[in-house]
Amino acid sequence: MAGGGQGRVAVIGASGYGGLQTIRLLQDHPSLTVTFLGGERSAGRRWSSICSFLPLPEDPVVQSADAERIAAAADYAVLSLPNGLACQLAPELLQRGVRVVDLSADFRYRSLEQWSQVYAQEANRLSREDSELCQQAVYGLPEWHGPAIAEARLVAAPGCFPTASLLPLLPFLKQGLIDTDGIVIDAKTGTSGGGRVPKEAMLLAEASESIAPYGVIGHRHTSEIEQMAREVAGQDVRLQFTPHLVPMVRGLLSTVYARLRDPGLTAEDCTTVLEAVYRHHPCVSVLPVGTYPATKWARHTNRALVSVQVDTRTGQMILMSAIDNLIKGQAGQGVQCLNLMHGLPPETGLPLQSFYP
Amino acid sequence: MAGGGQGRVAVIGASGYGGLQTIRLLQDHPSLTVTFLGGERSAGRRWSSICSFLPLPEDPVVQSADAERIAAAADYAVLSLPNGLACQLAPELLQRGVRVVDLSADFRYRSLEQWSQVYAQEANRLSREDSELCQQAVYGLPEWHGPAIAEARLVAAPGCFPTASLLPLLPFLKQGLIDTDGIVIDAKTGTSGGGRVPKEAMLLAEASESIAPYGVIGHRHTSEIEQMAREVAGQDVRLQFTPHLVPMVRGLLSTVYARLRDPGLTAEDCTTVLEAVYRHHPCVSVLPVGTYPATKWARHTNRALVSVQVDTRTGQMILMSAIDNLIKGQAGQGVQCLNLMHGLPPETGLPLQSFYP
Amino acid sequence: MAGGGQGRVAVIGASGYGGLQTIRLLQDHPSLTVTFLGGERSAGRRWSSICSFLPLPEDPVVQSADAERIAAAADYAVLSLPNGLACQLAPELLQRGVRVVDLSADFRYRSLEQWSQVYAQEANRLSREDSELCQQAVYGLPEWHGPAIAEARLVAAPGCFPTASLLPLLPFLKQGLIDTDGIVIDAKTGTSGGGRVPKEAMLLAEASESIAPYGVIGHRHTSEIEQMAREVAGQDVRLQFTPHLVPMVRGLLSTVYARLRDPGLTAEDCTTVLEAVYRHHPCVSVLPVGTYPATKWARHTNRALVSVQVDTRTGQMILMSAIDNLIKGQAGQGVQCLNLMHGLPPETGLPLQSFYP
Amino acid sequence: MAGGGQGRVAVIGASGYGGLQTIRLLQDHPSLTVTFLGGERSAGRRWSSICSFLPLPEDPVVQSADAERIAAAADYAVLSLPNGLACQLAPELLQRGVRVVDLSADFRYRSLEQWSQVYAQEANRLSREDSELCQQAVYGLPEWHGPAIAEARLVAAPGCFPTASLLPLLPFLKQGLIDTDGIVIDAKTGTSGGGRVPKEAMLLAEASESIAPYGVIGHRHTSEIEQMAREVAGQDVRLQFTPHLVPMVRGLLSTVYARLRDPGLTAEDCTTVLEAVYRHHPCVSVLPVGTYPATKWARHTNRALVSVQVDTRTGQMILMSAIDNLIKGQAGQGVQCLNLMHGLPPETGLPLQSFYP
Repeated sequence: MAGGGQGRVAVIGASGYGGLQTIRLLQDHPSLTVTFLGGERSAGRRWSSICSFLPLPEDPVVQSADAERIAAAADYAVLSLPNGLACQLAPELLQRGVRVVDLSADFRYRSLEQWSQVYAQEANRLSREDSELCQQAVYGLPEWHGPAIAEARLVAAPGCFPTASLLPLLPFLKQGLIDTDGIVIDAKTGTSGGGRVPKEAMLLAEASESIAPYGVIGHRHTSEIEQMAREVAGQDVRLQFTPHLVPMVRGLLSTVYARLRDPGLTAEDCTTVLEAVYRHHPCVSVLPVGTYPATKWARHTNRALVSVQVDTRTGQMILMSAIDNLIKGQAGQGVQCLNLMHGLPPETGLPLQSFYP
Repeated sequence: MAGGGQGRVAVIGASGYGGLQTIRLLQDHPSLTVTFLGGERSAGRRWSSICSFLPLPEDPVVQSADAERIAAAADYAVLSLPNGLACQLAPELLQRGVRVVDLSADFRYRSLEQWSQVYAQEANRLSREDSELCQQAVYGLPEWHGPAIAEARLVAAPGCFPTASLLPLLPFLKQGLIDTDGIVIDAKTGTSGGGRVPKEAMLLAEASESIAPYGVIGHRHTSEIEQMAREVAGQDVRLQFTPHLVPMVRGLLSTVYARLRDPGLTAEDCTTVLEAVYRHHPCVSVLPVGTYPATKWARHTNRALVSVQVDTRTGQMILMSAIDNLIKGQAGQGVQCLNLMHGLPPETGLPLQSFYP
Repeated sequence: MAGGGQGRVAVIGASGYGGLQTIRLLQDHPSLTVTFLGGERSAGRRWSSICSFLPLPEDPVVQSADAERIAAAADYAVLSLPNGLACQLAPELLQRGVRVVDLSADFRYRSLEQWSQVYAQEANRLSREDSELCQQAVYGLPEWHGPAIAEARLVAAPGCFPTASLLPLLPFLKQGLIDTDGIVIDAKTGTSGGGRVPKEAMLLAEASESIAPYGVIGHRHTSEIEQMAREVAGQDVRLQFTPHLVPMVRGLLSTVYARLRDPGLTAEDCTTVLEAVYRHHPCVSVLPVGTYPATKWARHTNRALVSVQVDTRTGQMILMSAIDNLIKGQAGQGVQCLNLMHGLPPETGLPLQSFYP
Repeated sequence: MAGGGQGRVAVIGASGYGGLQTIRLLQDHPSLTVTFLGGERSAGRRWSSICSFLPLPEDPVVQSADAERIAAAADYAVLSLPNGLACQLAPELLQRGVRVVDLSADFRYRSLEQWSQVYAQEANRLSREDSELCQQAVYGLPEWHGPAIAEARLVAAPGCFPTASLLPLLPFLKQGLIDTDGIVIDAKTGTSGGGRVPKEAMLLAEASESIAPYGVIGHRHTSEIEQMAREVAGQDVRLQFTPHLVPMVRGLLSTVYARLRDPGLTAEDCTTVLEAVYRHHPCVSVLPVGTYPATKWARHTNRALVSVQVDTRTGQMILMSAIDNLIKGQAGQGVQCLNLMHGLPPETGLPLQSFYP
């Protein structure tokens, strides 16, 4: 579809954080309009009874996610569902000509086998046979797969940790400037990444005034990061990824440690590498040497703030990257993909400046 | 001094966080009593007018830090002053027979030259000539220097980051189980580490709802950690230390990445290494494999919680360590040193269990 | 029972916040020891597998709450259960000679009818016939019912809001210094008051960075406050109670507005009224005129901080009261009652000074 | 000036929170452009060196606030300065034809005498003689003074507490539905209201995990609220105003208690009163009965959310009102006034929907 017309968007999983953010972002969008709200638990209810704080025009009723009805109402569908559900709904939508952006992990792996290893348990040992669809799906990191996304029928929006980690890392992997071994990613996320379904660990009483690691050595975003890193590096990349839970609502910081192959490279050199890649990508800002990103600067925006420092004493490069985990790390990136699919500049309608403080 | 008698303690810098914590901790102590409160800004004022929320018996008046008067009132002095002041006061106290625990960085380096490189700018280019005293001072990490602390006239309590980082790391360095090169320490601290003097970056409005790195590649605790690591490893250790500011009041987490020399070692093996060292040290708790420390578990206690995980895929060991930055990371460790100096078990009178949540 | 011997305490509902606090508080107690841990969901599990951060001697197994076994193991039982359960267990314990402190609302009303009106829906329309027991139960506000608590077989520990609101208010009602009509209580609580069972509204992502009223006009603590106010005032008291949820873990502030009958009374006069009542009660501190309580000053303590101000312009008295909702507002007050029942000074073993900041 | 052309705006006090918010809001504005940045401490510096996180086109240099230069560059000036400074700069700007919106308290009182009583001490006993100007200044509450603001040369934007308190209260005062005596306003604010200049009480370490009242009986916003209340009620209004500091960055909640003159009025009736007044004011949303506002719903927006409940038992009406203290409570309201002055709909370019959570 050309960028001229209005795009009609269905949001499935409307009352979770991913759905909610997508709806909110599209309220400010000049060319994409939400025309269908889907949800299971909230099906049949007026939107205002679910989210009184976000009034929508004509106060729509949330509907169950029936492919036929979605196809009648929308050109695009954003699926914001628990892992293992999108892979059931997406084929039916694609058949009916609806182009899909999936915010879950269902289509992030080229290989269905790998998905099964990592996610099958969570997805109730779901047996999938959509191997071909997995191969067709485009990994929705717009700064790296822009043209493919623009043409895609099915886009798998990346996870929040992969987004923040890959953006600063990929330029160096692509140019072969760092060892592909021994990379350490120490990541920190706000609690909204855990979703809206209540869990003890995400209670304010539990999570506030504390920081803790979790998913040490086994976090599933490890393989997602490595898959994309391998694709860009042209060789296997093995890395150590450790997420930490931070007492804040939103924001995600990734601190990446890698060894420079050329010990003569300076922070200025490395900043130039980043700038060369991202100069024409308004959703990524490269900070000047010595300025380190705070997640607050990226909050409520679709902007990633990246910075690089070099320690000549140790030969390490330190990459730092801050995003809003629910926007550039999820729903905003989904809209960025929709923009490309709809023939628009990727940043169309997306907030790029935070309200500080 | 034998443990029989009551020890009299002067707290200098009483209204800052370090002084305040020391006073609070000693309120619960069976054998040490605060007998002198010193401070510059608050000299001449009744304690209740400074800290109404912490009533002290007989509501003492804060006094200026005169060595003669301190010596008349106290056997021990805890100095909680900005860097560059303790090195002026300590000699006068030592001359008068007062044993000193300094919470600042003034005596943490064996070499005065190194101190000058790292701290002289902050300490207004202070010119020091107390090189001998620096060599005599004992680095007050009680689990590693217990006997020396017990005999010491002058103890330099370690910094908060070094405490949290060294406790899990030293056993592996001592036994030569890890590469001394390529160690990465990614540390996270609450804002109380910045002290009580108002700074914009530490305002709730600025620091809340955000996480950010700071002092990347140049933080001064790097050299303090390396000094102690070298002493224990018997060889130079170069490491990458990156602190982050976390939106919480207190708590400090250190995540340490190191490469195991023997790829066959398991998390269980490494846990055994930690347990063997800390079994008889009640202020360090080794967590079972798979349990990762939250800073909240250590909050308001003098306990360090350490845990280790091994990634056989990458050959990395991940050490995690949580402390309360103002207690085990500062004032509590100072009291732990006082206990040893006074002939008491190190944990005497110190809180070891948090109030959760 | 005389204060001489060790008291054995069963804690039922061990892994909720009320149970957890009770256990933690008793770890520091000189004369009361936890000898039985009861819980439904966690029955059969080792304590360390539930709360690894709070190691208990010999790592006991949590047991189901069987009255016979409790009676064999304990002299006292602290019940920290959802409303509607204590009233089923308590009679069986009392029959077997176990003295009970109930932290729920089951025995807070003298009149079973009133309880039914307020709580029956929540307690699944439970039909109770223990009217007599309700009348025997003592309302466990130790500063006002000390002698009755000391003799009681069954104590109903007050709710957190009633505790914070009644402590400053009762002296003025007792002396008839304020209008019994038109009292406004605007209260603010941390989220731990909502308990440990996950609820969407208590997620950090939802509750953080926000304040909101709830339970406006209909909150059930209204009637509990009025009951006790009437008893002390000797006449009906009607008040407006509005709680608010504050983005913090613990702490509860009650701001009470009442009209002075004598417009000539000053803040100093009113402070004297409070001091006269609480002078010999170490768990209540009256602040000097012009000092207003912060909940942080009371955090992790069993101390209530109260303050009073008078506006001669409007004739209003403003009472302010800060407590830790889980200690003086729940478990600590329960232990304070146990102390009295065991013949000890009420503050025995209870923390009275916070760790600031 | 008609709404057709672009309006040029000078922001004086650019790096404080008020200035920063104004600049940020105007980035999204279709018809108003920032053309001058003024500041004292930051004069001569490039904007990017002050606020790297908010990149501005062409990275302007901050300039000292010279009236001549401001007049050359701008049609409007937003003054975001400490109290006592705007009254010195404003006359010079007005003389030169620059229309002024002042965010400070300097022109909020019709009577200079009253201002002097309340603010002179803070403003260093400044002696003012601009009594006439005070009388001309329009109190910038757009929902109540829209036409006057549209014509005004000098607008005094209301304080944050008055804005949140007056919006729900004025309709009832105007219609004479409540007693003008005995009104209680219990207000709660985030710490950004304290500004960006560092103060101990606003440190995260101090303010976090705590709530406390301040300015009890003497807060200066009392008289500001009463002035406007009297104007609308047509008679004196005396009220009790008590602010509280809440551990969050932004957000302000006002809970107002007033006695209904007609005890037969219901919450539905009172909601209708609010709706009738605010139906055509998009920056005020009246919530349905039983829905109470959370400040998070208003965060980063220029929207006030108001709700009313009635307690027939006590005869009290409870009004609740949530705003973002830096937007509808400060800079956003200033822009709303600018919109009216520039002939635009008041909500032009202003965010009305929050990013939840």
